[in-house]
Amino acid sequence: MNVGVVGATGYSGVELYRLLANHPEVEMCNVYSSSLDKVAYTEIFPHLQEISGEQINAINAEEMKKELDVVFLATPSGISKELVPELTGSKAKVIDLSGDLRLKTPGEYEKWYGKNPASAALLDNAVYGLSEWNQQAIKKADVVANPGCYPTASLLGLAPLVNSEEIKSQSVIIDAKSGLSGAGKKASLTSSFAESQENFRIYKVHQHQHIPEIEQQLQWWSGKKEKITFSTHLVPMTRGIMATMYVELLKDWNTESLQDYYQSIYESSPFVRVRKKGSFPSTRDVYGSNYCDIAVELDERTNRVTIVSVIDNLLKGAAGQAVQNMNLMFGLEETTGLTQFPIYP
Amino acid sequence: MNVGVVGATGYSGVELYRLLANHPEVEMCNVYSSSLDKVAYTEIFPHLQEISGEQINAINAEEMKKELDVVFLATPSGISKELVPELTGSKAKVIDLSGDLRLKTPGEYEKWYGKNPASAALLDNAVYGLSEWNQQAIKKADVVANPGCYPTASLLGLAPLVNSEEIKSQSVIIDAKSGLSGAGKKASLTSSFAESQENFRIYKVHQHQHIPEIEQQLQWWSGKKEKITFSTHLVPMTRGIMATMYVELLKDWNTESLQDYYQSIYESSPFVRVRKKGSFPSTRDVYGSNYCDIAVELDERTNRVTIVSVIDNLLKGAAGQAVQNMNLMFGLEETTGLTQFPIYP
Amino acid sequence: MNVGVVGATGYSGVELYRLLANHPEVEMCNVYSSSLDKVAYTEIFPHLQEISGEQINAINAEEMKKELDVVFLATPSGISKELVPELTGSKAKVIDLSGDLRLKTPGEYEKWYGKNPASAALLDNAVYGLSEWNQQAIKKADVVANPGCYPTASLLGLAPLVNSEEIKSQSVIIDAKSGLSGAGKKASLTSSFAESQENFRIYKVHQHQHIPEIEQQLQWWSGKKEKITFSTHLVPMTRGIMATMYVELLKDWNTESLQDYYQSIYESSPFVRVRKKGSFPSTRDVYGSNYCDIAVELDERTNRVTIVSVIDNLLKGAAGQAVQNMNLMFGLEETTGLTQFPIYP
Amino acid sequence: MNVGVVGATGYSGVELYRLLANHPEVEMCNVYSSSLDKVAYTEIFPHLQEISGEQINAINAEEMKKELDVVFLATPSGISKELVPELTGSKAKVIDLSGDLRLKTPGEYEKWYGKNPASAALLDNAVYGLSEWNQQAIKKADVVANPGCYPTASLLGLAPLVNSEEIKSQSVIIDAKSGLSGAGKKASLTSSFAESQENFRIYKVHQHQHIPEIEQQLQWWSGKKEKITFSTHLVPMTRGIMATMYVELLKDWNTESLQDYYQSIYESSPFVRVRKKGSFPSTRDVYGSNYCDIAVELDERTNRVTIVSVIDNLLKGAAGQAVQNMNLMFGLEETTGLTQFPIYP
Repeated sequence: MNVGVVGATGYSGVELYRLLANHPEVEMCNVYSSSLDKVAYTEIFPHLQEISGEQINAINAEEMKKELDVVFLATPSGISKELVPELTGSKAKVIDLSGDLRLKTPGEYEKWYGKNPASAALLDNAVYGLSEWNQQAIKKADVVANPGCYPTASLLGLAPLVNSEEIKSQSVIIDAKSGLSGAGKKASLTSSFAESQENFRIYKVHQHQHIPEIEQQLQWWSGKKEKITFSTHLVPMTRGIMATMYVELLKDWNTESLQDYYQSIYESSPFVRVRKKGSFPSTRDVYGSNYCDIAVELDERTNRVTIVSVIDNLLKGAAGQAVQNMNLMFGLEETTGLTQFPIYP
Repeated sequence: MNVGVVGATGYSGVELYRLLANHPEVEMCNVYSSSLDKVAYTEIFPHLQEISGEQINAINAEEMKKELDVVFLATPSGISKELVPELTGSKAKVIDLSGDLRLKTPGEYEKWYGKNPASAALLDNAVYGLSEWNQQAIKKADVVANPGCYPTASLLGLAPLVNSEEIKSQSVIIDAKSGLSGAGKKASLTSSFAESQENFRIYKVHQHQHIPEIEQQLQWWSGKKEKITFSTHLVPMTRGIMATMYVELLKDWNTESLQDYYQSIYESSPFVRVRKKGSFPSTRDVYGSNYCDIAVELDERTNRVTIVSVIDNLLKGAAGQAVQNMNLMFGLEETTGLTQFPIYP
Repeated sequence: MNVGVVGATGYSGVELYRLLANHPEVEMCNVYSSSLDKVAYTEIFPHLQEISGEQINAINAEEMKKELDVVFLATPSGISKELVPELTGSKAKVIDLSGDLRLKTPGEYEKWYGKNPASAALLDNAVYGLSEWNQQAIKKADVVANPGCYPTASLLGLAPLVNSEEIKSQSVIIDAKSGLSGAGKKASLTSSFAESQENFRIYKVHQHQHIPEIEQQLQWWSGKKEKITFSTHLVPMTRGIMATMYVELLKDWNTESLQDYYQSIYESSPFVRVRKKGSFPSTRDVYGSNYCDIAVELDERTNRVTIVSVIDNLLKGAAGQAVQNMNLMFGLEETTGLTQFPIYP
Repeated sequence: MNVGVVGATGYSGVELYRLLANHPEVEMCNVYSSSLDKVAYTEIFPHLQEISGEQINAINAEEMKKELDVVFLATPSGISKELVPELTGSKAKVIDLSGDLRLKTPGEYEKWYGKNPASAALLDNAVYGLSEWNQQAIKKADVVANPGCYPTASLLGLAPLVNSEEIKSQSVIIDAKSGLSGAGKKASLTSSFAESQENFRIYKVHQHQHIPEIEQQLQWWSGKKEKITFSTHLVPMTRGIMATMYVELLKDWNTESLQDYYQSIYESSPFVRVRKKGSFPSTRDVYGSNYCDIAVELDERTNRVTIVSVIDNLLKGAAGQAVQNMNLMFGLEETTGLTQFPIYP
């Protein structure tokens, strides 16, 4: 297979390159940028010296359509809704890591992203790429909207209970924490070391653009409008997301029965690992890997359930899940090229 | 005033020393340890070279009773319930930073701390030292039970709404995050750098000993039994606590009216600062200071309220509040010796 | 005294404000910026809420000359050489924290800073403010060129041996390490958290503009041209500098005699602390304080001497030493307003 | 191949497991511990859940001799000198990552490690495993003494100039910096997060046990006794070593000729990457990989050469080089199982 990464100078882009250049079914991995042309990839990333011979090229949709089997868009929001239409009608499938194609209702995109939405046809055509829960549609998709990092961690943790309609309506609270790489590779005072180190911050309270993405999926599963309370925090670390979630149940469960249920649901999902009683995941447990580790525990005193879900935001939350979706789209084993162990310590 | 710090080799102890040695009303600050005797304080803390001439001495209750006006106990749980009875009946007032004297019900202490409780008489005599909300009792107290770090951050954030009975019963969820110094000065694998750095962890889920402390105070305020859901996380930083709290209200409020209400409640509290709309505190905003910064915002989509409260766990969460309580007990201005600005960056 | 801080929105500027607002002899502390006017200081620094009532004003030399006793310039290089001439001829003394007035040879400034130098008259008039070694001149100065952070740590460590001509010519090697706040408060990819965390970097190898500053002072002391080898590294921390220095001696010393000599030299310097045998300083030992901690030890196997010197780059390396110089210029006790203990941990 | 890792619960041990379990020529990877027996490996390392089915077993030399082709000893110093003799005389080759077999002179081991040395016969038989410079001997070895982390970084940087006798005798100064994982997986106050974060420390000044290891190798190359000055520092990060080295040359070189020379020397070494003029490596450039990145630059003002060398201490400085040596010993391609890209960011 020949693949291309657009936005290859960003963090998700270079992580895609790391995965794809080592993927056994990928022969050629082109790298594209909207700001650079004909620059050695190692100029931007010295850690790839003697590893990558790639040259960054300007985006060229015609060339991509001819040469590539799949194009990954690791671009900021606002770009792929222009580029994807140019690519369709070719053999090149598209996996879009930006938020442009995730929300099915154009008005919601406008409201939360503050930009013009993609066309309704394009939104209709794009399949939401939550690999574990949308496999059949992903396998047939031409365009996949790769989920956001927070939605991936949150939805994998909520899915078993929401799908079986066990959760009390409107009871979902998600307290999410992320490392700084989620903000992307950029110069900003807020993301600077001196402002971030030895600091724990809350941001975009009640306003994060991942709120409608999570709610849309919850509604697909439960059939009911769901409003969540969702908070996002910045942790002084580079990679990793933890979503700590609080829900109320409609029926009686205990911790063991919850864990057994989660384990049965995710038995055949190679990247979701459910913890046993008394064990909770840390972000380090999945660092550098495509795993999502989940714990679920009943608070017997309040009868609420606490669900903890961790991912590496650049892998299961971005590049890793994108490659997982590529594997599904091309009929490969889901884990191909994604068997890296977590890096510890 | 002559003061003494027991447990002076720990993090809260040395922070007490920093505050007390610079306190304008303190003449002498003795330092005591349960494990060391006749050792120069600078042997343990080279950063105090040429600053401190103190010698660490073994605990000697008789001497303390004669010489000291106030004794701070910055000891692990289990020690002060033995030591405080020895000190009472003297001029020496006691401020206990361990958890031993906080829970009024001995059975609760046994259940959550797994140790034998202090005597009922001692528990009765100890005044809970949440400075902003218990001033009259603290002023008359001989023994103050200094609040825990998580309870301080949480209770200061919840107090205005709980006191006025605005919160729906059983709706309080506290998602708390702390830096590593909260675990104390000790050798442990869990607290080691390599295990903690670039890692975000959840611990003691539904089992933290600060749960009954918070619930006891909520009940005092509301007159009703309150069960909270409480989660604690470790952030890869040394100092700082953030409590993100979710509550449901009984009546209609909006963000402005909530903020106005909080501002009016804390108008005369020099260490509690309430944020204006759209501004949220970070732990760095209070680093090295005795402030507690609070933001409150209605989630209009779900009608839940998010309350954010930050403190420096070693100051407002331990040594700072202890000195604030000393000021109250001795009729000094509440802010005496506590006017350090937050250190930034 | 009435004082002003120009560049008050930067890290050295806000640290100056922290020291000066708490300085017992300072009545009024104005804050100025080259980019902002009539903005509440707390807008920029929420950690100063309820602490600072100051308003940031545009630079106004006329007003400063009338109202202020001393003006601190915490500006990037290139600005103070314009502003200082406007201020001279008034009662306002100037302490310049930028590099503009440190190098006496205009050509050297041009070569290392790549900008036009200040006038020769201005350079002549400016006194190099290494507080411990230039006290008499500082006391009489109208304009003080406050030393750079690396030169302060390096020169305080080298001074005793260089002044007594004990060091073999051209043998000085300085391997210096700094936290990220040294780069200033700015948005830059290099300074971003994700690029800096879990990373140790070397930069400006053989090219740092502090090289001629150190060499100039060494020459003043030894009377001989000195060329040093000087390397600078970035440590993933916010504050702190360590200079590890390697020198060859002309005569026989041992570790004890070296330490005794250093201790005798710095006996009356309240901010320089010399370590005893076997003890070496860490940057944390001086965090948040104006101390410079020094250790010196002979490597008996190679007969070279290793000198270790640590400072907080924002205090002894910038704002702290500036206030120390103000104290000297105005006949105050050297330690006035500078007795903060190091923050630990 | 069947392999075993002794000391599998430590950081080097679990990193060896990560590499060996993914090594294409390794069929079985047993894990052993001196303190545990019959414990699931995932009990100790939850990040290996659903990845590892291994059970930790007690050390059993007889079984190892029968079953294993190679045994890796990732043990503290003092253990392998007992265990290696039990393993010899079997098909099992040994790669020892402890320091026990590196120093050829028993007296030197005693002096620097403060323990009894291994037998002279064992020391004679052990081949020093600096992969790039000792390939022929490693290929034929039964026992390899895997180099220390600091020596690997230092020697790879010094080798080209020392081997060609270009360096002025006794002129080598090595200023080395390491992340905290180098101290191993253990509970110690010094390694705790609160003591390490936002702190830069120097330790074991002139006394590190890697000094004689480096000097021994320099002497093998140059034929002359070499005494180096060697300083070690702790950086608040988990992985990574940088050695900044200062040497004086006997003949005239310039930066380009030095870089060309280094590039020619390491042309066929797949894991050593030499930087071009103006580019210097950071520890992040090799994080999680087996690379050693080197820059060399003449300081034209002093005629000294600065050499910068970075490695990941757990890979090229421990587990990675050990697997590289295994590849050499068994006639495999040197890079087999070691082609992981550096993790960025």
